[in-house]
Amino acid sequence: MIFKTDIQIADEAKMLPIEEVAAIVGISNSDLEYYGKYKAKISWDAIKRIEEKNKDGKLVLVSAISPTPAGEGKSTVSIGLAQGFNRIGKKSAVALREPSLGPVFGVKGGAAGGGYSQVVPMEDINLHFTGDFHAITSANNLISACIDNHIHQGNELKIDIRQIIWKRVIDMNDRALRNVVVSLGKKADGFPREDHFMITVASEIMAVLCLSESLIDLKERIGKMIVAYSLDGDAVKVSDLGIEGAVAMLLKDALKPNLVQTLENTPAFIHGGPFANIAHGCNSILATKLALKTSEYAVTEAGFGADLGAEKFMDIKCRVAGLKPDAIVIVATIKALKMHGGVDKKNLKPENVEALEKGFENLKRHVENVKKFGVPAIIAINRFESDTEKEITKLKELCEQLNVRISLCECFAKGGEGAEDLASQIVELTEREKSNFKYIYDINDSITEKVNTIVRELYRGRQANFTKAAQNQIKKLESLGLDKLPICIAKTQFSFTDDQKIMGAPTDFDIEVQDIRVSAGAGFIVVQTSNIMVMPGLPKTPAANKMDIDNNGIITGLF
Amino acid sequence: MIFKTDIQIADEAKMLPIEEVAAIVGISNSDLEYYGKYKAKISWDAIKRIEEKNKDGKLVLVSAISPTPAGEGKSTVSIGLAQGFNRIGKKSAVALREPSLGPVFGVKGGAAGGGYSQVVPMEDINLHFTGDFHAITSANNLISACIDNHIHQGNELKIDIRQIIWKRVIDMNDRALRNVVVSLGKKADGFPREDHFMITVASEIMAVLCLSESLIDLKERIGKMIVAYSLDGDAVKVSDLGIEGAVAMLLKDALKPNLVQTLENTPAFIHGGPFANIAHGCNSILATKLALKTSEYAVTEAGFGADLGAEKFMDIKCRVAGLKPDAIVIVATIKALKMHGGVDKKNLKPENVEALEKGFENLKRHVENVKKFGVPAIIAINRFESDTEKEITKLKELCEQLNVRISLCECFAKGGEGAEDLASQIVELTEREKSNFKYIYDINDSITEKVNTIVRELYRGRQANFTKAAQNQIKKLESLGLDKLPICIAKTQFSFTDDQKIMGAPTDFDIEVQDIRVSAGAGFIVVQTSNIMVMPGLPKTPAANKMDIDNNGIITGLF
Repeated sequence: MIFKTDIQIADEAKMLPIEEVAAIVGISNSDLEYYGKYKAKISWDAIKRIEEKNKDGKLVLVSAISPTPAGEGKSTVSIGLAQGFNRIGKKSAVALREPSLGPVFGVKGGAAGGGYSQVVPMEDINLHFTGDFHAITSANNLISACIDNHIHQGNELKIDIRQIIWKRVIDMNDRALRNVVVSLGKKADGFPREDHFMITVASEIMAVLCLSESLIDLKERIGKMIVAYSLDGDAVKVSDLGIEGAVAMLLKDALKPNLVQTLENTPAFIHGGPFANIAHGCNSILATKLALKTSEYAVTEAGFGADLGAEKFMDIKCRVAGLKPDAIVIVATIKALKMHGGVDKKNLKPENVEALEKGFENLKRHVENVKKFGVPAIIAINRFESDTEKEITKLKELCEQLNVRISLCECFAKGGEGAEDLASQIVELTEREKSNFKYIYDINDSITEKVNTIVRELYRGRQANFTKAAQNQIKKLESLGLDKLPICIAKTQFSFTDDQKIMGAPTDFDIEVQDIRVSAGAGFIVVQTSNIMVMPGLPKTPAANKMDIDNNGIITGLF
Repeated sequence: MIFKTDIQIADEAKMLPIEEVAAIVGISNSDLEYYGKYKAKISWDAIKRIEEKNKDGKLVLVSAISPTPAGEGKSTVSIGLAQGFNRIGKKSAVALREPSLGPVFGVKGGAAGGGYSQVVPMEDINLHFTGDFHAITSANNLISACIDNHIHQGNELKIDIRQIIWKRVIDMNDRALRNVVVSLGKKADGFPREDHFMITVASEIMAVLCLSESLIDLKERIGKMIVAYSLDGDAVKVSDLGIEGAVAMLLKDALKPNLVQTLENTPAFIHGGPFANIAHGCNSILATKLALKTSEYAVTEAGFGADLGAEKFMDIKCRVAGLKPDAIVIVATIKALKMHGGVDKKNLKPENVEALEKGFENLKRHVENVKKFGVPAIIAINRFESDTEKEITKLKELCEQLNVRISLCECFAKGGEGAEDLASQIVELTEREKSNFKYIYDINDSITEKVNTIVRELYRGRQANFTKAAQNQIKKLESLGLDKLPICIAKTQFSFTDDQKIMGAPTDFDIEVQDIRVSAGAGFIVVQTSNIMVMPGLPKTPAANKMDIDNNGIITGLF
């Protein structure tokens, strides 16, 4: 039983000075750029040296069933698992996404794990951390300011103000900025036009940062980003504005991965956090590679369920970085499976083996999907006290039928100890089953073919139907030579279909593709199946109202 | 002759590890919160200990004549002077404002001194530094998001959307955001209204941060800030929204002063940077006090000319903090004096003793003004190669007539060596003349009286005329009991009058007060004499276009 809040547990943690955490993974004091005593960035020298000299450990991806409002605890399991590996004598590090500041003041709160499986200092990580998101916000908005300034100063590039794709961003849940009109006023104030703010994590710069492996790589990708179309229909890129150097300069520190630690002093590389729908939703390649090169078992996670997060991890991130996962953990909870089996959120506590069995179909499909990538899978059940013996027995039975391993985790209540079994089973699994990793589609297929492959192979729908607008976009991208890129599907995370209400493991459905866009800097094609909310709002009583700080800097209400 | 750019000189500097700089002023390693190897914040423990135990050094304020487009070099002289003190064996530290990121990409470029009188690492200081401005941006915009969310969620406080004073901010020169309409869209997107973005330094939070001496002080000031008026005419404060704790929490690190060093390893506390017109334009009280408590001669500066910057330093900052300047340096250049004497910017190089003598009237008035505060003054001439012997002789003669000391400084070309004479003269001055510091007005006078005192005593105008709107605002503030506060005049910095074209030392003019507002958190009354631009724009070719970074992180084009 946990009676303490996350922030209380985090405050009581005995953190090691960050140089001691770094020493665990062979990173020396001189390789660190400190941000206070417990956070550091890794220098380029160290990144290059480690990349060249060290061997890869094994890469474990933590994914999940289709998320439900019951919560699955993917970050908690990722952190717990890395701690578990260290407890059984396997050197481990975890690579995670940075939390976004906006949701902290909304409903979601922090995103640094939970209970006894957290990364610390959690307050800093949840607030400004090392300033990466602020740098991305500045970089994004420098581009916006230069676009409007270019138009104001004569518009040599003939930018069509009706076709400006690049949006301003802010790291705040602020519904008032979703739809705005800018440049009102007088002659000195520019040409009025409609604009939209997104939350910072939705910026293409965030995706670019997470896919770049050097400053030059970053700068080139930034230059390629399409910000608008001209009146002649040409793509206007950041390089046409001539500011890719300035934008990259703003990101010079943000591109370096951050090192912190878990509550059990396991090294944690926390870096980047792109949206998991309009972008690929994984932490940076640089962070993942550092974890991989400095440990025997590197644990990382991908946003949403395995149909979205794991698919993008493998088809986008692994493709760009040349990574190959050795095992995939699918996180589920018995509560969430019962929801997939049709139980209402209010009735999840009472035992319901029948609903569990029905909801298991969702988990089963994710396991099957993951195996199509040639990667060994294991199920991690994030345990709740309400889980009954009968339910657990049934679940084990179903897993046995599916021929997949299962581990009951108590990472939240027990930290690494609660994930020792999971860690041990993964060691066995990766020693016995070799990963035969392959992508689900050929990058040289047409956009339509690539999307249909994902829809049929992973979602198990009949096909994708493309709206007229989407078809036109496909033609446009083909004419621009931008069609031979990986696909990034923006779809509700709650269902295999494009209707968030259809849980479980539906069949006989089509997916409607409403729009197609290219993120030319990130290097993927965004396939939009519904309107994606890129700027959240605050609830009636924002979490901000419960937060406080005293004269000694002690924070309350941040969970 | 200097052929190197500021960034080249800065790159060649031999920086000491920041703990060694801290050691110079008796701050130990454990008192530092590192941001990389050359930047640190000072811990609360150290701030409190130093405040209690250490004795004050002498406080030297660097101000200037009315600024001209020729440039005066106040920051360069401040930094050079601190270096000069150390060279003559007087322990010195300098307290400065942080540069704003927005102007870096515009015309102005960096703001970290120049030549051999710079603070370093200049690239970091000019870019994100330790994230203070980003934290202020977030804190400001959390309030905005909560205001619009409050209205959207039922508007219990009856906020009048026509009378929302609180504006959003961004640290970017972005003319498109000066006048916007927000909350367009559908029901979930809020109630449409007009809004305006300011650049971050114009946020009242910036002023509050610079005037706060503890987290509690900060939180209380934040709670008092007026964000809107209700439909019933009541002031709506941040505390009414219940988020002063969350806002203060976002500023927990930003409130701690930053320590860096000059090119000659002189400790520099760089912290905060409020607008010098709608706010008081000086670095934080905490930074100034740290410099004062850790050195024999603390050097600090105040924005714009002495009529605005020095006046606000003394009447606002010193009043709040209980500070007393021991000497004031008035910086001028011969070029700028010639401009005040009527010479066009294009013709400043040729010798012109007559214009110099005429323009000296501006300098003379500032010197007289400063003496009215009871503080000994000295003139520092920031030398240019074009200055002729005859001009210098005339200037010395005029200073002698005025009975004021003068020193010729070559801080830009020679660093501290170029300010040794200035430093020596200040030592003599402060040893011989005791400061009899007093404020220029009584805080308990009426708003009208306080404004007229400044207009008559310092600007030497006839009187202030208040528009009907301003008169109504005065009545409103009197009824709210918010009139017994210091005055913060927002006026053009280029003239003693409210007309920026009238240079020199004009007489027989009135000042028109167009509007009056209260910054209830900062604790001053803003008296607006003209439209103040709170959001700059970018020029035709922004400085951003010349900036670049290579794969090793080497930056070019940042001045």
